[in-house]
Formats: sequence, C-alpha cells, structure tokens
Amino acid sequence: MSGPVCQFVYSKTDLYNTHKEVREVKELIELHKEDFIERLKSFLSIPSISSLSAHKEDVQKGADWVADALKEIGMEHVEVIETEGHPIVYADWMHAQGKPTVLIYGHYDVQPEDPLDLWETPPFEPTIRDGKIYARGATDDKGQLFLHIKALDLLMKEKGELPVNVKFCIEGEEEIASPNLGPFINDNQDKLSCNAVVISDTSFIEKGQPAICTSLRGALAMEVTVKTANTDLHSGSYGGAVPNSIHALVHILESLHHENGEIAVDGFYEGVPEVTEALREEVAQIPFDEEKMKQELDLEALFGEEGFTFHERVGIRPTLEVNGITGGFQGEGLKTIVPSQASAKISCRLVGDQHPQAIYEAIKRHLEAHMQAGAQVEVEQYIKANPVALDSNDPMIQTAADAYEEVYGVRPLFPKEGGSIPIVEVFARVLNAPVVLMGFGLPSENLHAPNEHFHLENFIKGMETASLYLKKLGNQ
Amino acid sequence: MSGPVCQFVYSKTDLYNTHKEVREVKELIELHKEDFIERLKSFLSIPSISSLSAHKEDVQKGADWVADALKEIGMEHVEVIETEGHPIVYADWMHAQGKPTVLIYGHYDVQPEDPLDLWETPPFEPTIRDGKIYARGATDDKGQLFLHIKALDLLMKEKGELPVNVKFCIEGEEEIASPNLGPFINDNQDKLSCNAVVISDTSFIEKGQPAICTSLRGALAMEVTVKTANTDLHSGSYGGAVPNSIHALVHILESLHHENGEIAVDGFYEGVPEVTEALREEVAQIPFDEEKMKQELDLEALFGEEGFTFHERVGIRPTLEVNGITGGFQGEGLKTIVPSQASAKISCRLVGDQHPQAIYEAIKRHLEAHMQAGAQVEVEQYIKANPVALDSNDPMIQTAADAYEEVYGVRPLFPKEGGSIPIVEVFARVLNAPVVLMGFGLPSENLHAPNEHFHLENFIKGMETASLYLKKLGNQ
Repeated sequence: MSGPVCQFVYSKTDLYNTHKEVREVKELIELHKEDFIERLKSFLSIPSISSLSAHKEDVQKGADWVADALKEIGMEHVEVIETEGHPIVYADWMHAQGKPTVLIYGHYDVQPEDPLDLWETPPFEPTIRDGKIYARGATDDKGQLFLHIKALDLLMKEKGELPVNVKFCIEGEEEIASPNLGPFINDNQDKLSCNAVVISDTSFIEKGQPAICTSLRGALAMEVTVKTANTDLHSGSYGGAVPNSIHALVHILESLHHENGEIAVDGFYEGVPEVTEALREEVAQIPFDEEKMKQELDLEALFGEEGFTFHERVGIRPTLEVNGITGGFQGEGLKTIVPSQASAKISCRLVGDQHPQAIYEAIKRHLEAHMQAGAQVEVEQYIKANPVALDSNDPMIQTAADAYEEVYGVRPLFPKEGGSIPIVEVFARVLNAPVVLMGFGLPSENLHAPNEHFHLENFIKGMETASLYLKKLGNQ
Repeated sequence: MSGPVCQFVYSKTDLYNTHKEVREVKELIELHKEDFIERLKSFLSIPSISSLSAHKEDVQKGADWVADALKEIGMEHVEVIETEGHPIVYADWMHAQGKPTVLIYGHYDVQPEDPLDLWETPPFEPTIRDGKIYARGATDDKGQLFLHIKALDLLMKEKGELPVNVKFCIEGEEEIASPNLGPFINDNQDKLSCNAVVISDTSFIEKGQPAICTSLRGALAMEVTVKTANTDLHSGSYGGAVPNSIHALVHILESLHHENGEIAVDGFYEGVPEVTEALREEVAQIPFDEEKMKQELDLEALFGEEGFTFHERVGIRPTLEVNGITGGFQGEGLKTIVPSQASAKISCRLVGDQHPQAIYEAIKRHLEAHMQAGAQVEVEQYIKANPVALDSNDPMIQTAADAYEEVYGVRPLFPKEGGSIPIVEVFARVLNAPVVLMGFGLPSENLHAPNEHFHLENFIKGMETASLYLKKLGNQ
C-alpha cells in the first residue's frame, strides 16, 4: 500500500492503461472498419478448398493473399513455403527485445461448399446480412485469422511497433488434417520457437460468453468401399440371389454401434479416460440450452451414447460418425439394379490416450470380420490426430482470459471442445509452448455447412481482444 | 400314308416350305444386313432416357424415329400418340383377311447410362466389337424391337404383303413402369384387340439356348428419405450427440432383411405361392452354371434367401433390394459432418398373389416403426406392377417355340423370369390374349448396366425367327 494508488492500479490490473488503449484501438477500428471488412471479403472470395484438387490454384492464391496482407502490415521475412501439398506462409517481427514471442497460427484453406443449393448466397461471394458476413471460411478460419493480422495492423498504426515479438505460421491444409505442417514444425523448431502459440479457430459457448478451449479431441478418418461384382446387375435377373454392395455396406455400418449408442468395435474404448464425478462437474460448468439448440437446428430429439450429457458426448467421449455414403443409382427416378459398389466416409473423434492408428486398425478388423459373404471391403485411411489437453491455469491462457474479460465484460469459460485441430497437439508437444485457443466464432455459425457466417461484432471485438492481449503480454 | 410323301411332309411339319422360306429370308437379310445394322445404330444413338426429364425431347425423338421406321416398311395408320408422359406409337396392317392378328409391343425408351466412366465406348455412340453392338438400349429394348420391324420389312420385300394382320403398340415409358400405357390399353381395347401379343424384351437362358418366358415378377419401387436436422452439422461439435441421418437410414435398411436373407417386413410374404416339389423341379429344368456366372461377373459367392437355389431366388421368390443410396459428403477427400439428410432407392420383385400396394404399405409401416429417435422418414412410391404367369401350352407360344427350333436347332425352354415387365400383366388381362415373350437377348448383355450390348447374331436370327413365326401363324 506504499505507492500511489494510480501506480498500484496500473501495475496490478493495467486498468487505466487498458481503458485508454482499448479506446485508442477502438478509434482506429472505427476509422478503418469498412476497409477491413472489404479486405476480408476479398480474402473470403478465394475458393481455397484444400480437399479438392481442382482448387489447387485457388489454395495457392489464398497463400499469396495472406503473404501480401502480412507484408502490408509491416511483417518481415514473409515467405510462401511450398510443401508436398499446399503452401505454408511464414512471417515474423522480432524487434520487441526482452519481450515474449507469440506464434500466431491459422489456416487459409476452407471446407468444400456443397450442398451448394442450400446456400442463400453463393459461398464465395461474401455477403453481409444482419451484421454477419456469409461465406465459406467466414468463421473457419479466414475471419478469425484475419482479425489477428488486422490487430497487429492496429498496433503498428498506433505505436509504429508491436508490444511483443510475433511469428506467423499459416497453413492451407487444416481442413485435410495438416499432413505437411507437422513435419514442417518438427524440422523448424528454432524458427518457430515461441512462448505461446495463439490460435483463433474455435468458438464462444454462445453469443456473449467467450471461451478458451482447453481440450481438443483427436481425429481419425477413413473411406470404406465395398465391392461385390464387376458390374451393376439387373435387379430382376439377379436381385435376391447375388450379393448387393449396399446391403453389405449397410450391414457393416450398422454393426459399428450398439443400440444404446455405444461403439461396438472391439478395443475402441481403450485409452478413454474414466468419466469421474469431478470431470462431469467440470463439463457441467458449460451452460447448455437443449430446447434452444433443438429449435435452432430443427432437431426432434438428441441421440447418442446412453448415460452421457450433450457436453460429455461431444467433449470427453469418443465418437464414430458416418459423414457420407454413396452407392448404386442416385439420379432422378429409379434404376432397378443390384449395385456392385458402395462406399462410406467415416470419421472418429478420440479422447485421452486413444491411439489413432490402433483405433483405425481395430475398426478395419471389425469391418472385415462383419463383411457379408461375397463382398470385399477396402479401407483407406485419411487422417489421424492425437487428442490434446491444455492447462487452463497457464499464465499465457489466463492473460488471454483477462483480455477477453475487459473487452466483452465476461470472463471466458474453459470448455473441452469436441472438434479436432490436429496440429494443436503437435505445436504443444514439439514447441513445448502453451497453446492459447482464443476463439471468436459462435457455435451457430454453420461451420462446415451451408450458409457459414461470422458475426462482424466478434470480428471487431476480436481485433480489440487480440491487440489488448499482446499489449498485456508486452507489459508483463 | 396315302398321300404323296412330299405332301405329307409339307402338311405335317411345313418342312419343305420352311426351309425354302428361311432361305429366302436369309438371302434378303444377307442383302440388307449392313443397312439394317446402320439403321439400328441410328436408333441407338438417340438418348431416349425416360426417367430423366432433361431427356424429354430425346424420348420424343425416339418415338418419331419408330414412327418413321414403321411408315417406311409399309405399316398403316401410324400415329405418335401423346400421353401425360412420353408418347405411344401405334401402327397397323390389317389386310390378311381371315388370318390372326398379332400385336407387337416393344419400348423405345432406355435406362440412364450412369456410371458413365465404366463404359468402354460412349453409351449413345453405338460401336461394334466382336460381333456385338454396344450401346444403351442395344438389347433392352431397341435391338429386340427393331428386329420385329425389320422382320416385317423382309416379309413385305419377299411377298409384298404380310402373312397375318399386325398391330404395333410401342411405348417410351417401360423403364419407368409404363404409367400411361396401362390406361391407354384400357381405353383402346378394340383398337388393340388381337390373338396374341408378341414381346421381345427378355433373354435366352444362355448363348444357343432360346427361351420363352412364362412368368414375370411384379414390381414395386420407392425412395426413402431420412432427415434429422435443418443443416449438416460439424462432427466435432455435434457428432455423437445428435441424430445422424445416415446412421438412421442404415439402421432401417439393415432391419429389412434377416441374417438368413429373408425379408423381415411383417406381411411381406403374404400371397407368395408355396414352393412345392413340383415347382422346384420345374425351375430346376433351367440349366445353371454357377461357376461360370461367378467368373463372368467376378462374384466371390452367391448370397440370398437361405434354402433356395439361384433360379428359385430370382424366379419364384420375392425380393427387396436397395438400388441406390446417397447422403452427406460424397466428394473427394473428407468433410467431417453429421449429415442431416440421406436417402435410398428400394425396389421389390413380387410373385404369385403379392399385392404391390399392400406390400408398399407394409414396408412403409416397417420403416416408420424402426426409425431412430430424432429422425423422420419420408417414403415416396415410384412404381407398382402385378406379377403375371403365362401358359406355356398355349398354341401361340408353342408355334413361337417351333419357329425358334427351326432357326436355332434347339427348342426353347420356358423359364420363370425374375424381371418385371409391368405391362405384360395388363396386356394379358385387358386384351385377354396370350402374351408371347420371345426374347433374343442374352443374360450377359449388361442390360441396365455399363457396356450394354446385343449380339448381332441374335439380331439376324431374331429377324428370321420373327418372320418365320408370322408365316407359321398365317399358315395355321
């Protein structure tokens, strides 16, 4: 209690400074907002769909766009680094001597847009309606990545320098599980070394309730193809007497779950943490309005593994979901064939110590064991990613929480996310740095679905929060 | 033994006359063969796919082509009769006083061509390889229809007249279950009245073994659509906790069969005739080379209702087959969604007294009863057709068998076909005339599948057989 009150307040909570800085940043945002939104539209209009080879050039365009945006705000050593797949964009600004180094990660690639006919406006013609910008990639992840670039722009505009050292490592393969970024991180540990990895690719709990995710599930995906004959056969001449590839596929897919929603694959639950009362209580902190969600998504009922709540099912339990299925005649009308080939795409979310490769092999064994006579199954593995858990008490995470609280007036919660960002586990392990998952999306923003959008309010407040966070780190 | 031997032989078996006439027809065929094949190619190059609305004009072209071909050979009263769907082509030649009247039915519409990438040559660019003409519709039914037109052309060329009265009733909706021909037959019983209906839209048992089919299964088809939410959802955020439309669809499809291949729908087998020893013996007459079929179609094993042979399964037992399935993401790579909608096309073959409408309702009830929580099912009915049985001892059928025997040197068998030609039952019932199913296809000709083809040998011998049959009817 010896120093001046002002000084005390300043050093204790940075309150005075913060309010001033928030104001200054706010004024700058007001000045440049329209331009920033126009720039975001230009970013969103690039159909950088990483999973479709036809869009390879568009993905390259996305990388070049990001590199240009980084150069424009004064980042240095901007590189578009070719990989066996899509490029990685690197940049840095390392002039904040004695200050921490923050590595900002994001991705400029997006999910495919289909089903196209369900979009109200074209997925790559960004449109603003009701304060939301609609486009594929709006929330996942172009909008959330771009707000960091513009947060630095604001800091540069304000002071001509940044409060901390910053590195960018932006990839174009997140939606296909980052096959080349993992090796790149392994090979470039010095180049990427940092005190925290900051990633905005997650969501609030709901509008007004920010969240810093502290757990991501692992992932595993595969395509299963069933073949029965060398050609489709006439269902009148052969139906009922030869194997039907769709029947055989349906049979193995149905065998993957028990009636109670449990996954029926031998060994699937090995490594899944016990659901203790303490864990249940932690998960129960996250508010959940079942009726509201059901109404929003037009769900008649929830469905899942018996004995678990919604947030337990998506946060701490593993899953196995069929994401797509195709076989036989799918056009208008009918074609009375016995289809010779059918396939399904399957993905799993993994938790705890579940090992993706072991789970993949267990599923493959299960599929082969349940195959009907006369049907052959082929399984192709797409992705695998380890689950990751982060410590919510890490100061890097708590400081981010402070920044949110000051901008939004509400302290973030620390949920366990159901999704997977495979690279998070690699960043945490290889760089041995805390990963701060400071999301600015909303769960209702249709990511991976038609009419994806991003609330401009969170684009703006996201810039405020991100710049305030870096100032706070610089002041520590 | 009183008359001259020659006379005896003549009247007893028509042998002398036949041989002469076969020779004359053969000579005429030799003279015109190349032209006939070129004309068939022109017919086959019209993509008259009745089930796809985009091909409506092509179907109309098919009708006009048939009408022109009928006019060209001297048929009279040629009409292209519009219906609510695709046109019916009518024509007649009624100058054989005191002779029987034969109604020739066929269809100028074809199945969709997909999967297009499995065709060795484009489906609507007819190509001859190894004595077979490859094109969609080659065997089903344009080749088999056109051989009748050209058989009459040969008879006209030979004698300037036909040995019997002939009517043509050719439709463009067979592949979509003839929705308009049934009512047309009902409304035009006098116009269509005849002593026999001749249809070539079936197959030999195998190369060299002709067949006149005496039983066709009924048919029923529907599309089942399952919906769970108003949008696809991220499998990370929602997977395992909300209904998955593909899981729900897979669940109901799997529930349709027991493990032993039996159909699990309550009431499905009502009206199915008892499989007596006599019936089994009759079916066992049809030769069957399981190993050869497995090799040709690359089948590892057969699969079907336990306790029945291949020919019992496809000839006298009812079936339920999924013809196509679609849902969620089906593109390249992966998209980790919980799909909100999935659908399947299902068709049944019916036998005996199974009533299509009753079976449809039983299946609908079954699907609704087996639906998972949170999933809604919609069922749309496409076609229904009654089963039909014909008497192989009918003189009209036996005379056709005589014609085959003389041309091919082998008497036809009388198999019970697994396929459905819904209109056959209507012709038989409404016109009260025997239906003669004199097929010239081969079961290996990929009907309804890629690389459909027709053996030119049977196109040629088919013309001989068809013209000889009419001569025999005229001589009776």
